[in-house]
Amino acid sequence: MSDSERPLTYNSYLLVDQLLGCQRPQSQLAGQPAHDEMLFIVVHQICELWFKQILCELDRVRRVFLQPKDGWPDLAIAIDGLDRIQKIQRVLQQQFEVLETMTPLGFLAFRDRLGSSSGFQSLQFRLIEIRLGLRRDQRLGPAACPFDQDLSEADKALLARAEREPALIDLLEAWLESSPYLDYVGPPGEAAFTFKQSYRLASTGDAFDSLFDENRHGELQAKGAWKLSAPALQTALFIMLYQQEPALRLSYQLLDRLMEMDIGWTAWRQRHALMVQRMIGRKIGTGGTTGDDYLKRASEHHRVFADLFTLATYLVPPSRVPPLPPSLQAALRSPQMTPVPRQRQA
Amino acid sequence: MSDSERPLTYNSYLLVDQLLGCQRPQSQLAGQPAHDEMLFIVVHQICELWFKQILCELDRVRRVFLQPKDGWPDLAIAIDGLDRIQKIQRVLQQQFEVLETMTPLGFLAFRDRLGSSSGFQSLQFRLIEIRLGLRRDQRLGPAACPFDQDLSEADKALLARAEREPALIDLLEAWLESSPYLDYVGPPGEAAFTFKQSYRLASTGDAFDSLFDENRHGELQAKGAWKLSAPALQTALFIMLYQQEPALRLSYQLLDRLMEMDIGWTAWRQRHALMVQRMIGRKIGTGGTTGDDYLKRASEHHRVFADLFTLATYLVPPSRVPPLPPSLQAALRSPQMTPVPRQRQA
Amino acid sequence: MSDSERPLTYNSYLLVDQLLGCQRPQSQLAGQPAHDEMLFIVVHQICELWFKQILCELDRVRRVFLQPKDGWPDLAIAIDGLDRIQKIQRVLQQQFEVLETMTPLGFLAFRDRLGSSSGFQSLQFRLIEIRLGLRRDQRLGPAACPFDQDLSEADKALLARAEREPALIDLLEAWLESSPYLDYVGPPGEAAFTFKQSYRLASTGDAFDSLFDENRHGELQAKGAWKLSAPALQTALFIMLYQQEPALRLSYQLLDRLMEMDIGWTAWRQRHALMVQRMIGRKIGTGGTTGDDYLKRASEHHRVFADLFTLATYLVPPSRVPPLPPSLQAALRSPQMTPVPRQRQA
Amino acid sequence: MSDSERPLTYNSYLLVDQLLGCQRPQSQLAGQPAHDEMLFIVVHQICELWFKQILCELDRVRRVFLQPKDGWPDLAIAIDGLDRIQKIQRVLQQQFEVLETMTPLGFLAFRDRLGSSSGFQSLQFRLIEIRLGLRRDQRLGPAACPFDQDLSEADKALLARAEREPALIDLLEAWLESSPYLDYVGPPGEAAFTFKQSYRLASTGDAFDSLFDENRHGELQAKGAWKLSAPALQTALFIMLYQQEPALRLSYQLLDRLMEMDIGWTAWRQRHALMVQRMIGRKIGTGGTTGDDYLKRASEHHRVFADLFTLATYLVPPSRVPPLPPSLQAALRSPQMTPVPRQRQA
Repeated sequence: MSDSERPLTYNSYLLVDQLLGCQRPQSQLAGQPAHDEMLFIVVHQICELWFKQILCELDRVRRVFLQPKDGWPDLAIAIDGLDRIQKIQRVLQQQFEVLETMTPLGFLAFRDRLGSSSGFQSLQFRLIEIRLGLRRDQRLGPAACPFDQDLSEADKALLARAEREPALIDLLEAWLESSPYLDYVGPPGEAAFTFKQSYRLASTGDAFDSLFDENRHGELQAKGAWKLSAPALQTALFIMLYQQEPALRLSYQLLDRLMEMDIGWTAWRQRHALMVQRMIGRKIGTGGTTGDDYLKRASEHHRVFADLFTLATYLVPPSRVPPLPPSLQAALRSPQMTPVPRQRQA
Repeated sequence: MSDSERPLTYNSYLLVDQLLGCQRPQSQLAGQPAHDEMLFIVVHQICELWFKQILCELDRVRRVFLQPKDGWPDLAIAIDGLDRIQKIQRVLQQQFEVLETMTPLGFLAFRDRLGSSSGFQSLQFRLIEIRLGLRRDQRLGPAACPFDQDLSEADKALLARAEREPALIDLLEAWLESSPYLDYVGPPGEAAFTFKQSYRLASTGDAFDSLFDENRHGELQAKGAWKLSAPALQTALFIMLYQQEPALRLSYQLLDRLMEMDIGWTAWRQRHALMVQRMIGRKIGTGGTTGDDYLKRASEHHRVFADLFTLATYLVPPSRVPPLPPSLQAALRSPQMTPVPRQRQA
Repeated sequence: MSDSERPLTYNSYLLVDQLLGCQRPQSQLAGQPAHDEMLFIVVHQICELWFKQILCELDRVRRVFLQPKDGWPDLAIAIDGLDRIQKIQRVLQQQFEVLETMTPLGFLAFRDRLGSSSGFQSLQFRLIEIRLGLRRDQRLGPAACPFDQDLSEADKALLARAEREPALIDLLEAWLESSPYLDYVGPPGEAAFTFKQSYRLASTGDAFDSLFDENRHGELQAKGAWKLSAPALQTALFIMLYQQEPALRLSYQLLDRLMEMDIGWTAWRQRHALMVQRMIGRKIGTGGTTGDDYLKRASEHHRVFADLFTLATYLVPPSRVPPLPPSLQAALRSPQMTPVPRQRQA
Repeated sequence: MSDSERPLTYNSYLLVDQLLGCQRPQSQLAGQPAHDEMLFIVVHQICELWFKQILCELDRVRRVFLQPKDGWPDLAIAIDGLDRIQKIQRVLQQQFEVLETMTPLGFLAFRDRLGSSSGFQSLQFRLIEIRLGLRRDQRLGPAACPFDQDLSEADKALLARAEREPALIDLLEAWLESSPYLDYVGPPGEAAFTFKQSYRLASTGDAFDSLFDENRHGELQAKGAWKLSAPALQTALFIMLYQQEPALRLSYQLLDRLMEMDIGWTAWRQRHALMVQRMIGRKIGTGGTTGDDYLKRASEHHRVFADLFTLATYLVPPSRVPPLPPSLQAALRSPQMTPVPRQRQA
C-alpha cells in the first residue's frame, strides 16, 4: 500500500513528525543547552508559517482585481482576505509577549551561536512588502547595501520577479482610477457633476491644490508625500465623503481594511523595535544604526498605504459635504449600484 | 565544506525550506483547490509548535521539583515557566479568531478529504494532559474506547510511559505535603501551633470536616470531589490564608499561576467547542455525542487543578484569619524564610 | 457667564469630576480600607459604561430594520454596529484578566460590605438580553423567582416595556421571511425554482424534514430546538449555501456577525463563571445552585442566535450545492441585486 | 431611613445612575445627534477610570519603598501592583480597536463641538507621568508653553506638589543604591569582592567606562543618555547578571516588570499616534507639530525607565559572568537572602 493509499491521519495529514523535526537548537548540538533557544526557534518558525498564510491571502486579494468576475472585482472577497490578515497580525502582535518571557541574559546564552542569521533574511517578509507595494527605491538604506544582499541568487531573482508584478497598491490605484465618480453626466436637463468643482467650494485652497492641481500634486509625489496618482486620490476622497451611500459601502470597507492592515504592520514594526531594544539594548553615545533603530524608522518609512491616512486631512464635516445631482444620488442610495468602468458610464 | 561548517543563515538555522514544505493541502493534490485548506493546515501546525514549547516548559517546571537545587525547589523558575505557558495559552486562544474567518461552507469544501484525521489524535496534546496530571481513569468516555485508540503502538507506549512518571500535580502534592506549617513547635515557652485547631475556630464545621476529617475527605476524594491529599490541601489553604507574609509570596504565586493555567485550558476547550459547533453545527433532536459536546464536557471534567479553586470556599476574611505564634509570625514576616522540609524544622 | 457659555474643556466635556466622584469604597467609608475594592468598583463601572454603548449600538442596528431607508435595510450599517459590539466584547473579555489580579482573600477583605448587591441586578445587562431577543419564558430559573425580582418597580416596568418591543431576533426573522429566494419565477421558458425541492435532492431526509416539514419543525420549535420560523431558517440556509454570490455578500456578513456576537456573549458568560468560581469557590457535595453554575448554564441556555450555528449541520459541500436557474444565477452574480421584498419580485 | 441605612444594591453601591448621567453628547444637546459621539465619550471616560486605578496602584507600589515593613520593602507587593498595571495597559491598548470603529468622517460630524478640549488636559495622565518620574525639564516642548498651561490653578498646584514628592524612579534609585552587592567583604580568608573590578575583566573598556567611570557617566547623564546614578545602574546590572540566584529573583522580577510597564506606555503612545493620524490625517508639506507627531516623539522621549533597556547592552553571556566569592555565592543560592541595607552588611 503506497503512502497515498493509506488513510490520512492527523499525523500524516499535518506532517507532524517532519514539522517537529525542524527545531534544532544550536546550543544543544554544541552540548551546552540553553533553555530559551527552543522558544526562540519556535516563535520564529510560527512567524514564517503566518507569513506563508498572509502571502496566500494577498495573492487572493490581488486576484480579485487581476481577474474580475464578470467584469466586477468582488470586493467582498478582498475585504474578507484583509480581515483574515488583520486577525493574523493581531496574533503576531500578541506573540511578542511570549518571546519577551525570554530575558536578555537568557538570549545571550545562545546568541553567539546564531552566526550571521538575521530576521533581515526572511524571504517571505520581503515578499509581503513587495506584494503590498514597497518599491526598491522607497526602502530605507543606501543603495550600496541593498535589502536583498544576504539572500541566495535564486531568492534575489524571485524577489526581482515579484517586483515586476502588480502590487496591491498598483491594483488599488487602477481600480480607483477606473471609477466613474469624478465626472458624471446624468439625464438630459440635469447639470453635469464634476467632483473637482464641487469640492473646491467646500475646501480650503491649499487642501484643494494638493489633490487637484496637477503640478502641486506632482511636486508632492516627487517628494514622496503622495504615492497614489491624483485621480486615484480624488476617487478615494469621494468614497470617504460619501461612505454612507449604500452603493459605496463595500468600497469604503476596502479602504478601511487597507488602513487597518497598514496600522497592523506599523504597530508590528514598532513593537518589534521595542523587543529588539529590550533584548540587546542600545549603544549610547554612538551614531551607529542598530536593529531597533532600523525597525523604528521602517515603521514609518515603509508604510505603503499612508496616503489613505493623509486623506483624512481633506475631509469636510458631513454638513459641508457637497450635494450630488439627483440621479447620481438616487443611484448611490440604492444598494444596486457599484463602481463601473469609466467607459460604461459615458 | 560540510553543512555544519557553512555559516548559519536565517534559512539554515530555522530550516525554513523544510518547514514550508510541510503544508500539503489535499484539495490541491486532488486538483480541486479549496482556498481555506492552507489556513486550516497552518493553524493546526502552529498549535503543534506551541504544544512542543509547552511540553518543553512543563518538563522544566517539573524538574524544579524533581531536582531541587541545594535542597530547595527554585519556585521562581517554576513561576516563570507557568507565566510563559500562560502567555502561549493566550495566543492559542486568540488564534481561534483567525481560524473562524473560515466559514462552515469553506470548511466543507475540503472536509471530506481529511479522512479519519482528527484533533483527538494529537500526541502532544495528550502528553500535555498527562504531564499536568490527568489520569487515564479520570478521562471522559467509556473504557472500551480509550483515548489513545487511534494512535500507533509506539505512541501508545510513549503515553503509557509518561503516565508512570510523576505529573505536575503529583509534584505539587508532594511539595505541599512536605511543608512545615501544619504543625509548628516554636521556642520553649511558646504554645505549639497546629493549623487544624486554629482553623477549626475560624470556620464552619462542615467546611472544616471536608478538609480535616480524614473520613470525610476520603469520601469526597473517592467521589472525585477532591484530587489532592488532605495534608496537601491544608497546606495550600495555609498558604492562601497567609499569602501576605513575605516568606509565602512565591508559594502563593505558584498556586496562583497554576490556577491561571487551569483557567487557560478550560477557556481553550470551551472556545474550541464553540468553534467546532460553528463549523459543523450540531444534530438536533439526537442524543449522539459530538465533538463540541465532548470538548465542552472535558472543559470541566479534565481540569487538573480544580481543587485550588474549590479551596476559595474555605477561606475566611482577613480579619478572621487565626493569629500565628510570635516566632512563626516573625519568621514569615522576614522574606528570609521559605518552606522547608518537615524534618529540618524539627 | 453661564455653564453653557463657558468654552468646553476636557474636564467639562467629559464631566471628569463627577465621573471620578462615583467610586465610594465601602471599606474606606467604614475606616478599614481594603486595597482591592477600588479595582472591584472601577471594573464594574467600566462594564456598565460598555453596556451603555452596546445598547446604543443595538438600538441603531434595530433601526436599520425598523426604519429601512428607501425600503431597503442598510445592512452595512447593521454590520458596522455588530463589528463595534464585537470589539467591545473582546475588551470585556480581556478585563477579566485585570479583575483576576485580585485574589480571593483580597476579595474577602471587603465582600461582606457589599450587602445584597449583585451583578444579577444590572438593569442594562437585562436590557441587552431583551434587545437581543431573550424572552422571559426562555430564561433559566423557576417562574416563582423571576429574573427581575430585585429591581425597582420602575426598572421592572422599563424591562417589561422593552420586552414588548421587537427584539433583534424578531427583526432578523421578519427580514429573512421577506426574502424572495425560496420561490423564484424567472422569465418565460425558464423552469421555476423552489429551494425546498432543490435542497431535498442534495440533503438527507432527516435534515430536510427538520427544516422543511412544517410538523417536524413545529415539534422541534416547541421543544426549544429551533427559535426561528421555518421560512426564516430556510432563507438563512439559502444565504449560507450561496454566500459566494456577490449579491448575497452583505446578507451573509450579517449572519456571520450575529454568530460572532453570540460566541462573544457565550465566551463572556463562561469566563465570568470561571472568575466567580476562582473568587468564591464552590461548595462541594451540595446541590445548591451557585453563581458560577448559573453563569455556566446560562452561557448555553441564554444563547439567542444558536439556530444559526445549528444550520451548519444542514450545509452541503460546495460541489453538491444545487444549481440555480440561469436568470437568478445571473442576478446574484452581479453585485447589483440585493434581497427585495417578496411582492416586488412578483 | 437614611441613605446609609438602606441595604446596598448594585445600583447604590456602584452609583450607576450618577455614572450613567455623565455622558452628555454635545451634538445631541445641539439637536444634531452624531451617532459616534457617545462612543467617543464612553471610551475617554473609561480611560479616566483606568487612570484612576493605575494611580491607586502606583501609590501602593511607592508605599512599598516609602514605608518598608520591618525594614524590608515587600517587593512582591510592588510586583503584584506592576502586574496589575500591565494588565490594565493591555486593555487600554485593545480599546483603540473599539474607538477606531469610528470613521474619520464620523468624527468630523461632532468634532467642531468639542471646543478647546483635548486629551492634553487630562490631569490624571499628567499625574501618572509624574508618579513614574517624568520631570518637567525632561518633557517635550518649549518652556514657554508648559505642559500644564491649560489646567486650572488648583490642578497646576496639585501637579507641582506631586512633582516634589518622590517618584517611582527616585525610589528605585534609592533602593538600588542601598544594595550591598557592589562591595562585599566575606569571612576572614576570603578575598573581598568588588563588582567594579570583576566586571572590568569581563567587559570591553568602553562599556565599562559608561557605567563605572564617574566622569564618563556624568557626561552621559548630563546629555540625558542615563537617568539613574552610577551606583544604581551598577546594582541593576548586578541583578541582571546574577538573576538566576534565588535570592535575586524578586529583585529581577521588579526590574522586569518596570520594563514591561515602560513598553506598555511606549506602545500606547505609538498606537495613540496612529489613531490620531487616522482620525485627523496630517498636513503634508508643512512643518507644524501635530497631535500624532507629539505623541510619536513622546513615545520615545517620555520613557522613564529607558535605562533598564540600555543596560542590556552591558550584559555578558552567562559563560562569561564573573564568579562570586564562595560565601556570597552560597548566600545568594539560598532563597533566604535578599538585598539588605549597606550598613547591615558591614
